[in-house]
Amino acid sequence: MSAPANAVASSAATSEPYQAPAGLADVSVASTTVSDVLGRLGFYHYRGYNAVDIARRGRFEDAWHLMLRGELPTTEQRDAFTGETSALRQLPPGVGELLPSIARLSGPGSLESVRTAVSLAAQAIGCKPWTDQSQDLTRAQAEQISAILPTLTAQLYRLATGQEVVQPRADLGYAANYLYMITGEEPGERSTYAVERYLMLTIDHGFNNSTFTSRVIASSGADLGAVISGAIGALSGPFHGGAPARVFDMLDAIGSPDNAEPWLRHAIEHGEKLMGFGHRIYKTIDPRSQLLHEVAQELHSERVGFAEHVEKTAVALLAELKPGRELYANVEFYAGVVLEAAGLPREMFSATFACSRVVGWMANVLEQVRDNRIFRPLARYVGPEAPREFPAFWQPGQA
Amino acid sequence: MSAPANAVASSAATSEPYQAPAGLADVSVASTTVSDVLGRLGFYHYRGYNAVDIARRGRFEDAWHLMLRGELPTTEQRDAFTGETSALRQLPPGVGELLPSIARLSGPGSLESVRTAVSLAAQAIGCKPWTDQSQDLTRAQAEQISAILPTLTAQLYRLATGQEVVQPRADLGYAANYLYMITGEEPGERSTYAVERYLMLTIDHGFNNSTFTSRVIASSGADLGAVISGAIGALSGPFHGGAPARVFDMLDAIGSPDNAEPWLRHAIEHGEKLMGFGHRIYKTIDPRSQLLHEVAQELHSERVGFAEHVEKTAVALLAELKPGRELYANVEFYAGVVLEAAGLPREMFSATFACSRVVGWMANVLEQVRDNRIFRPLARYVGPEAPREFPAFWQPGQA
Repeated sequence: MSAPANAVASSAATSEPYQAPAGLADVSVASTTVSDVLGRLGFYHYRGYNAVDIARRGRFEDAWHLMLRGELPTTEQRDAFTGETSALRQLPPGVGELLPSIARLSGPGSLESVRTAVSLAAQAIGCKPWTDQSQDLTRAQAEQISAILPTLTAQLYRLATGQEVVQPRADLGYAANYLYMITGEEPGERSTYAVERYLMLTIDHGFNNSTFTSRVIASSGADLGAVISGAIGALSGPFHGGAPARVFDMLDAIGSPDNAEPWLRHAIEHGEKLMGFGHRIYKTIDPRSQLLHEVAQELHSERVGFAEHVEKTAVALLAELKPGRELYANVEFYAGVVLEAAGLPREMFSATFACSRVVGWMANVLEQVRDNRIFRPLARYVGPEAPREFPAFWQPGQA
Repeated sequence: MSAPANAVASSAATSEPYQAPAGLADVSVASTTVSDVLGRLGFYHYRGYNAVDIARRGRFEDAWHLMLRGELPTTEQRDAFTGETSALRQLPPGVGELLPSIARLSGPGSLESVRTAVSLAAQAIGCKPWTDQSQDLTRAQAEQISAILPTLTAQLYRLATGQEVVQPRADLGYAANYLYMITGEEPGERSTYAVERYLMLTIDHGFNNSTFTSRVIASSGADLGAVISGAIGALSGPFHGGAPARVFDMLDAIGSPDNAEPWLRHAIEHGEKLMGFGHRIYKTIDPRSQLLHEVAQELHSERVGFAEHVEKTAVALLAELKPGRELYANVEFYAGVVLEAAGLPREMFSATFACSRVVGWMANVLEQVRDNRIFRPLARYVGPEAPREFPAFWQPGQA
């Protein structure tokens, strides 16, 4: 059966669908109570609470509780939640013994390894399509996945660098335990404080690419293992979670304070994108970079002074050479400085980002499943007019 | 720093973003030359060619070549392509030895196992962010991933059912080799023909949920391993790729021809969704179910007559009880009948779907990376007005 020759014309004659801008820029695809970013104001929040204030004053578990259980915890609730999630850090049976083989296939800190490992861990946890289980069970699995992701990333890093894995300790906080599993040493207060601020600041940030991926996958009814491996995959893209380490590559390339002005001027004049500057949403100072800058200063790292000099120079040059573009340091600029000064190896920056953003992904998915419709958009066909005549050279013929 | 109290109001005062319907229904999110579905006409195509005609007259490799290399092949090109892709069926080193442990964690045919295994295989192939490699290499990896997916699914199935794995044979076509790896026996012509028709019919179908997932993940710059594991995850959702086996559950529940009318009437009257009927896009006969129906008849399976009776009864009852809804048998209704009669176990229906749709995912991603913008939509915040006052019970206090 062939379609009528006027197939495309007939279709075009019916009501036209909305043609969204590339990348769904400026298109609102859902309603949410999880978080919001008010870019022009340099303000973002978690469930209405200023995210920077939570990060400044709270514990990671406060934000985690807020995101997955809907409210900030009382002191008793925080203690209970911390106890429950600490107990979930151990890997489920059937996972640990495969990590050496997974780690061997990609480099230290690779999100590719994390993607495979967390997919496996979700199988081991027994995640099933959320349509086939209670919402309470799905939330419990969301908490478990958030709790084991740092264990997976830390153990994969240790294995990929030829070290023995370090088992999680339930008596340490989320951030301290993470540092401990990577370095093998109990971290100092300052390092723990710094990493915890970073983690709290990066839990959620609107419908970024990996968060949107989480929602799209969950909308099919798939299990949380499908969601988390898809989200980790999205985060591994250089346009998304791959940038923090690249800021460092830039700082290395600049090398010395004297070289900042000529190096940056040359880069901007030659159309190169500066790593760690500019944001699709913030047209003012990124509120995350501001707190991270303060945290960096408290760490008294040698890099901080140099990074500050590069930032000031870059912002001034951008204002001069790209007037009106309003380009400022984004979250990635000071993130690397903070994480390195706290003792995290550079290869682990993206994987560390995954360990906080996982809470945002899970919060979004728990919201998605409560009022779900499968994401199934349209595309505009712009190829040769259909139906095409088959070319004479194509000689079908069965096997 | 707190945001001004009128934060939300200020934001609302700026230009309003487009509010897309739930699930991005009827929103066109990209331009494409890969495929299109003209729902009201009951017609769909691959790069302009009637997909049903290709399926009726061609080989799987024809459609695969068309989708990934852009044109139908000449006889010589088909032979060369078949030779190249057959040679890619072997698993890369480092994968086969982990499959028993992966298979052990989920049931036979589970897409959860496939997701983990293909993520691992992509690591072993050496997939890197497409931003960091040539487009030729990305296409070569896309062909390799399509070639090994049947091997992975078949071997996982054999392992999950306690059987020895069967290595791929390069002298068999895509469909015949797939059947061979699952059953361990060289399939008959009729079974091969049937499965090949099914596979060709289901390669692509607009921006369905898993295809959209592929594009969203690829748009971040991520590697093909991230794309394929996310897409498999999306496909595993019961609202997407999980339905073919459920059609069978319905046929089993009906049991006998006499019971079809009362069983279906009761189900429809009680608001239950009939499995295998209705489609978000087709409001007429699904062109895929039509060819699959013919293929089913050629297989002379006992189930065919029964399925035909159920289809006729259901369509008549739906017209009577839900007038104007235009509900017909969709691709899933006869897919299961065909696949079972061809010798495929019921647990393998969704995994078999993945082995054809992978070609569509890869074709879409190769298009995405040629003209990319990261998917990063907005959401409408509808929670408590921000910034909220922190509750008095929240006693931050550092660790």
